[in-house]
Amino acid sequence: MDTIPVYLDCDTGIDDALAIAHLLASPRAELLGVGTVSGNSDAAQCARNTLDLLALAGRPDIPVAVGNHDFQAAPYGGGSPHVHGDNGMGGLELPRAPREPETESAAQMLVRLAREHRGRLHVIAVAPLTNLAEALRLEPRLPELVAHVTIMGGAALAPGNLTPAAEANIFHDPEAAADVLAAPWELTLVPLDVTMTEVMEEEHRLRLLNSGKPLPEALGRMLEYYFEFYRGIFGRPCSAMHDPLAAAIALGEVTVTRAPVVRAAVETGHGPARGATVCDLRGIYRGSGDQDGAHCRVVLEAEPGFPDFLVDGLLRAF
Amino acid sequence: MDTIPVYLDCDTGIDDALAIAHLLASPRAELLGVGTVSGNSDAAQCARNTLDLLALAGRPDIPVAVGNHDFQAAPYGGGSPHVHGDNGMGGLELPRAPREPETESAAQMLVRLAREHRGRLHVIAVAPLTNLAEALRLEPRLPELVAHVTIMGGAALAPGNLTPAAEANIFHDPEAAADVLAAPWELTLVPLDVTMTEVMEEEHRLRLLNSGKPLPEALGRMLEYYFEFYRGIFGRPCSAMHDPLAAAIALGEVTVTRAPVVRAAVETGHGPARGATVCDLRGIYRGSGDQDGAHCRVVLEAEPGFPDFLVDGLLRAF
Repeated sequence: MDTIPVYLDCDTGIDDALAIAHLLASPRAELLGVGTVSGNSDAAQCARNTLDLLALAGRPDIPVAVGNHDFQAAPYGGGSPHVHGDNGMGGLELPRAPREPETESAAQMLVRLAREHRGRLHVIAVAPLTNLAEALRLEPRLPELVAHVTIMGGAALAPGNLTPAAEANIFHDPEAAADVLAAPWELTLVPLDVTMTEVMEEEHRLRLLNSGKPLPEALGRMLEYYFEFYRGIFGRPCSAMHDPLAAAIALGEVTVTRAPVVRAAVETGHGPARGATVCDLRGIYRGSGDQDGAHCRVVLEAEPGFPDFLVDGLLRAF
Repeated sequence: MDTIPVYLDCDTGIDDALAIAHLLASPRAELLGVGTVSGNSDAAQCARNTLDLLALAGRPDIPVAVGNHDFQAAPYGGGSPHVHGDNGMGGLELPRAPREPETESAAQMLVRLAREHRGRLHVIAVAPLTNLAEALRLEPRLPELVAHVTIMGGAALAPGNLTPAAEANIFHDPEAAADVLAAPWELTLVPLDVTMTEVMEEEHRLRLLNSGKPLPEALGRMLEYYFEFYRGIFGRPCSAMHDPLAAAIALGEVTVTRAPVVRAAVETGHGPARGATVCDLRGIYRGSGDQDGAHCRVVLEAEPGFPDFLVDGLLRAF
């Protein structure tokens, strides 16, 4: 089986770190480049985190580009230090890698890789969609150049997280998300509906922490911070696996059990539903709910067991 | 047990007819008056349908008031003839009752009944909330005068029906719904989440149709039209029990098994989420999800079996 060339757009971020580690560990993926955007932390800090993680993983060869600091309709607002720590890594200080970010922007990197790997590149976006929207403006033919786009973001039938209606990646830049969902590429949306069901428990974290391997150990340490935030959500120390689940779904490593292909749009008004991902799921009462002419596959359910798969893979690879 | 004095606001409508019949059949309810509003059909036609139903049920003494023809931000758009028929009754022509609607408006009737039954009146609204919002403007102290408001409307975590995000009663007049949900009364919202799970089947309809009793027989006949619409939703002739379920929940006749009390708001922008009922259900991962200071109980699940309860009650009472 050929590997899948991947561009990752992220805001590293604790679960972004897990996604990066998984993309390096998976035999199915060839991670060609990473672009960052503000979200969990600011775009430049996210790039530093990414470079440091890649070095710790023994992959300092992978280029990282800094993307947008601000969102389409609003300036960056300071990230989520209560979720991901002041530095996005739960306060963990990784050894500083010598490599610096590229001179090209994240959107420029995405367009370049799409042209170089025409028809083959998979775009995995686990952050606000600002860079992807910019790339669509730089190269309107991007949807023809790219094989598939997988997005961790949104809430289809599940509650939001940052607001009652909206998931954080979409809420930070609804205008960009609206542009990205409207573009004519094949999209897979991995919303809270499924990411909140794949929960990493303390036993998983301890396996990473006590592995004696630098990258898994670092992930186990930063997850302690993330678990504390999720204690307020689930009532116990654990965490949802948003970003690595999206990466694994993009690679076809997780069996999705309910994923209708439907029309999807983003609410960009400034009312209580701002940032909501409005997916037309009215067909679910009749069966699959697929809609003719739609191009957004919305993953509502997946087979359980992803955290085990993730941890096993990381401990095997590193 | 004292009976509960009820003001019903409706847009009769086939399932409204079932709600009216149930309120007459239930030993718990004392139906004091009915106000109509445009929705399934126009407000005047809905009042005529209501008067004719009440006469057929042997209750021509109950007054009916015509409410708003148009919505707060938009004119009435012609109703739902594909769901409820041109006359709102699935095309069935009921014997015309001699009684005419009251001279007071629906909002005036609601305010009058709230004053006359201070602290005891239950408001059951199974239609666009235009009349309730007008009543709040006529009498800003209405929330202190009324015991409880139960609304059939909205979609909390379920898909909408009229749009991907919005249920019809709310979508017709989101501005009115926003006013009603913001007012400081104790509210119970009965959204599509639960009404789409209580499905009347052909066997129920045939029990009504073949009962040999005028009102149940009429309901069985008009339900044939409604069932045809729902064939497109569920893939078989049947129907959701929106309005009568809300009435039964208001009367405490149905055990609700999941109904957190949360903050709720209505999206009034003109984007894809217009008319969405944004309920803050982010607490569901931790248990009940109740929020301090909230006053909207959102019914997400109820014990099954409501259609049997409904039909049994109608056949016993009439």
